[in-house]
Amino acid sequence: MVHHTDAELPLPPMKWDAWGDPALAKPLPDDIKGLLSAALGVSASDTAGPTAEEVLLRPSALSPDDLAAITAIVGDGHLSTADADRLPRSGGKSTPDLLRRKSREPQDAPDAVVLPGSEEEIAALLALCAERRIAVVPFGGGTSVVGGVQPDRGGFAAVLCLDLRRFDRLHELDELSGEAVLGAGLTGPQAEELLAERGWELGHYPQSFRYATIGGFAATRSSGQDSAGYGRFDEMVRGLRVVTPAGLLDLGRAPASAAGPDLRELFLGSEGAFGVITAVRLRVHPLPTSKAYEAWSFPDFATGAAALRAVEQQGTGPTVIRLSDEAETAVNLAMTDKIGGTQVTGGCLAVTVFEGTPEQTAARHEATRAVLLAAGGTSLGAEPAKAWEHGRFNAPYLRDSLLAAGALCETLETATEWAELDRLKAAVTEALQTSLKQTGTDSLVMCHISHVYPTGASLYFTVVAAQQGDPLTQWAGVKRAAGEAIMANAGTITHHHAVGTDHLPWLGQEIGELGVRILRAVKDTLDPAGILNPGKLVP
Amino acid sequence: MVHHTDAELPLPPMKWDAWGDPALAKPLPDDIKGLLSAALGVSASDTAGPTAEEVLLRPSALSPDDLAAITAIVGDGHLSTADADRLPRSGGKSTPDLLRRKSREPQDAPDAVVLPGSEEEIAALLALCAERRIAVVPFGGGTSVVGGVQPDRGGFAAVLCLDLRRFDRLHELDELSGEAVLGAGLTGPQAEELLAERGWELGHYPQSFRYATIGGFAATRSSGQDSAGYGRFDEMVRGLRVVTPAGLLDLGRAPASAAGPDLRELFLGSEGAFGVITAVRLRVHPLPTSKAYEAWSFPDFATGAAALRAVEQQGTGPTVIRLSDEAETAVNLAMTDKIGGTQVTGGCLAVTVFEGTPEQTAARHEATRAVLLAAGGTSLGAEPAKAWEHGRFNAPYLRDSLLAAGALCETLETATEWAELDRLKAAVTEALQTSLKQTGTDSLVMCHISHVYPTGASLYFTVVAAQQGDPLTQWAGVKRAAGEAIMANAGTITHHHAVGTDHLPWLGQEIGELGVRILRAVKDTLDPAGILNPGKLVP
Repeated sequence: MVHHTDAELPLPPMKWDAWGDPALAKPLPDDIKGLLSAALGVSASDTAGPTAEEVLLRPSALSPDDLAAITAIVGDGHLSTADADRLPRSGGKSTPDLLRRKSREPQDAPDAVVLPGSEEEIAALLALCAERRIAVVPFGGGTSVVGGVQPDRGGFAAVLCLDLRRFDRLHELDELSGEAVLGAGLTGPQAEELLAERGWELGHYPQSFRYATIGGFAATRSSGQDSAGYGRFDEMVRGLRVVTPAGLLDLGRAPASAAGPDLRELFLGSEGAFGVITAVRLRVHPLPTSKAYEAWSFPDFATGAAALRAVEQQGTGPTVIRLSDEAETAVNLAMTDKIGGTQVTGGCLAVTVFEGTPEQTAARHEATRAVLLAAGGTSLGAEPAKAWEHGRFNAPYLRDSLLAAGALCETLETATEWAELDRLKAAVTEALQTSLKQTGTDSLVMCHISHVYPTGASLYFTVVAAQQGDPLTQWAGVKRAAGEAIMANAGTITHHHAVGTDHLPWLGQEIGELGVRILRAVKDTLDPAGILNPGKLVP
Repeated sequence: MVHHTDAELPLPPMKWDAWGDPALAKPLPDDIKGLLSAALGVSASDTAGPTAEEVLLRPSALSPDDLAAITAIVGDGHLSTADADRLPRSGGKSTPDLLRRKSREPQDAPDAVVLPGSEEEIAALLALCAERRIAVVPFGGGTSVVGGVQPDRGGFAAVLCLDLRRFDRLHELDELSGEAVLGAGLTGPQAEELLAERGWELGHYPQSFRYATIGGFAATRSSGQDSAGYGRFDEMVRGLRVVTPAGLLDLGRAPASAAGPDLRELFLGSEGAFGVITAVRLRVHPLPTSKAYEAWSFPDFATGAAALRAVEQQGTGPTVIRLSDEAETAVNLAMTDKIGGTQVTGGCLAVTVFEGTPEQTAARHEATRAVLLAAGGTSLGAEPAKAWEHGRFNAPYLRDSLLAAGALCETLETATEWAELDRLKAAVTEALQTSLKQTGTDSLVMCHISHVYPTGASLYFTVVAAQQGDPLTQWAGVKRAAGEAIMANAGTITHHHAVGTDHLPWLGQEIGELGVRILRAVKDTLDPAGILNPGKLVP
């Protein structure tokens, strides 16, 4: 069954059983381990998972004839059934995904990985797969934390991972209009590098930035940490090209239009279930020439949240604005290296960053600080904000270390109106703590506001507890409790992680059963055979 | 055939054969008539249309049994087949609509007008109409200029005008989040009055403001003259309720979500073809406490457009910013009463307005004026901007007078990227002038930018010529030429007027044939009998 072979295709820059770059992994300091043990009863896990060489993958179900037909479309060197190619594309990066990687039973994997090089090749692949009843999972950076790239066969004979990395071009940069057309397979850093060479920036920096792709950002309605300044990814999208089994869509003719419903919005968040996004036309801006930082302390979360609300409703223009609650602030204090001479001393930490021309940066900074001061904030100077920015993409490495140390650690996120924020935060915290208690462990639940809107904000929760019994089963119950609390308290089931498989149980509550029927109708129109990303988004 | 009866229902505050309030109509001054005659060869039309009492409407095709069944749903006093009720709901306000009103042949009209009072009544009406094969045209202010409320039977036995004026409540005002839930039947002034009583404002001021409704704004992706400050109407929408033949949709749970495609965007621009919008949750803001005005002159349109682009791309925050081209500036100069001591002296006139707190207004004004000065603008002081605001809703009255004087007068609008703006403007102007010349008349084509985006802007054209032959046929050819020029030069077929019947020929080019199939699939899911607003939006 095991026939380990060397990789034949370029690999995603991502560990198969943990986050990111192996070189950046950082084991937990012993004092933190002691703290976890004392506070939460976490004890080191004794179940080491298999190595990449030891892991068993289900063997490829594609026939030599299938493989020949696929190769005839994409040419030599763009198709592989090697375990070493299939393994790193076998799923996403949620805690359940990582826990499943510890299994020594045969693991799910795509039956092959294909790297098409053109829209025509994708169209031909989709036609072939519809005819031969092969499922297709479009694959970008593989950073989904909601099961979005799970290689589900969905009742078909096999499943093909369609890796978009060859769609890696800056097709067009319109400097007058501030628009760039970017290939869907470009990772965040690749896209920013191509733009920066010409003096431009997209400004989309989600935690997955280093690995996730332009197509993935679009397909999941991603939102970056600079969303206060540059908007959510969907707000940046001016147009997109999508290859569907029913044909090509090229949507978005003008900055704004009244020519019927905005069909771009059907593909933002379509999660590979309606078609394969190949290129995205995006609003870009000149690289900022100036940057300012300031961190703030608020006596409590409610005061801090009211301050963020005032900033956003008055439109003073920070590029980044975020607020940690008391628990997260305390943990940051404990976990982070000492920062300059300034110490965060309890309360709630807020971070602000400002970008633009020197004049814009100064004006935005000044206007924002006036609002934050008036709302009860105490300045902590620039250093804690710089420290946040320095480590902004590294939290997933910490989760790896916590999981390795025997802790259960996961994140979840939601959003709601300002008027509902306290209620939602309290309800989700309570649901997480209570459901974990029922599994026999205390927990640490931390929360921050990472995205603000005039009418509301997101809430991002991080939970740490001890693993009890089968941690997959344990987390499934906790996640269910949290999801129910979100839906019962005016939250959305996901603010920027998408639906995938994990949030599917709540989609009917989110958009109504009739809303689900609309998605189904669109799916049936574009993908009548149902081959695209089975089990995701559309129930 | 004619059985004129008194109105039984509250009437729309709108003339049946012209724009708006009869009290505000203003005949053209004699010297303007002379100018039209000399420059364009316009001669007074000798075909006076029928009066409201003389007009022939097609008789109601609804049977006594149908009427009884409808009355059983909505109760007495909410259904009428009287000509006086049907006539003012027989169409919209495009120039072709108004020209058709001059006919002494039997005119199209809905077979009855119904005023439901609840979502349940609408659901029951839709079920009844699906069963009895009666088409339904949702009706708000009746201000469509694209045939959007035409009483088309679409192959059914009869057509019912479903007037939403009883959905006239401010359901909810969340002052913390800045959100209001407004009934779909509220007109612009009604909505603003309800909000102003509590210190809030929506800030949506399209030219149709005085008559059009909240539901109509949503159903057509309306954009108001304050869009630079407060956004397009679709950007204000946080949620909406839609009664469809397949059930109720209640969309929009949070300020932002990644829970799949944003289905609100399917109903913004749905033009009554997918369902009946009953209530809209909208972002609102505190009434501004301060306001500043400044008008500007630019040597030419290209310089002015570059200046507007700089303002929008730098985000200096005007509430209103617009630019008339040389022709429109010259005509404004000729048509408007003298304004204070300041005279607009050729070139291109730009208008800016700033709102907010005194500090915000001052900061926005200062930052904007710095950009406009640097871009080559000359300040004309506040008066021309105040004069623009004073007359901002009155252009349609002018059209009435021009039509009555024998001129052909109509508007059309589009949008594109900044880089394409000059090309699009030149191409549409050329198409209008050439096609009118072919009908035997010179023409005056004026244009302004009324809505700006970081990546592009709208173009709004007004054309005046002499009527030649049948002016309906004459305009149909001109409109076709303009539409083709728009599509061939990177424009959208409509920036804020919607599709209706008039833009339907270009929808396939706008969103692709596959895009049209998506709309059809959504329509078939929500309105399987196809009774909703036949002939609009979905080909």
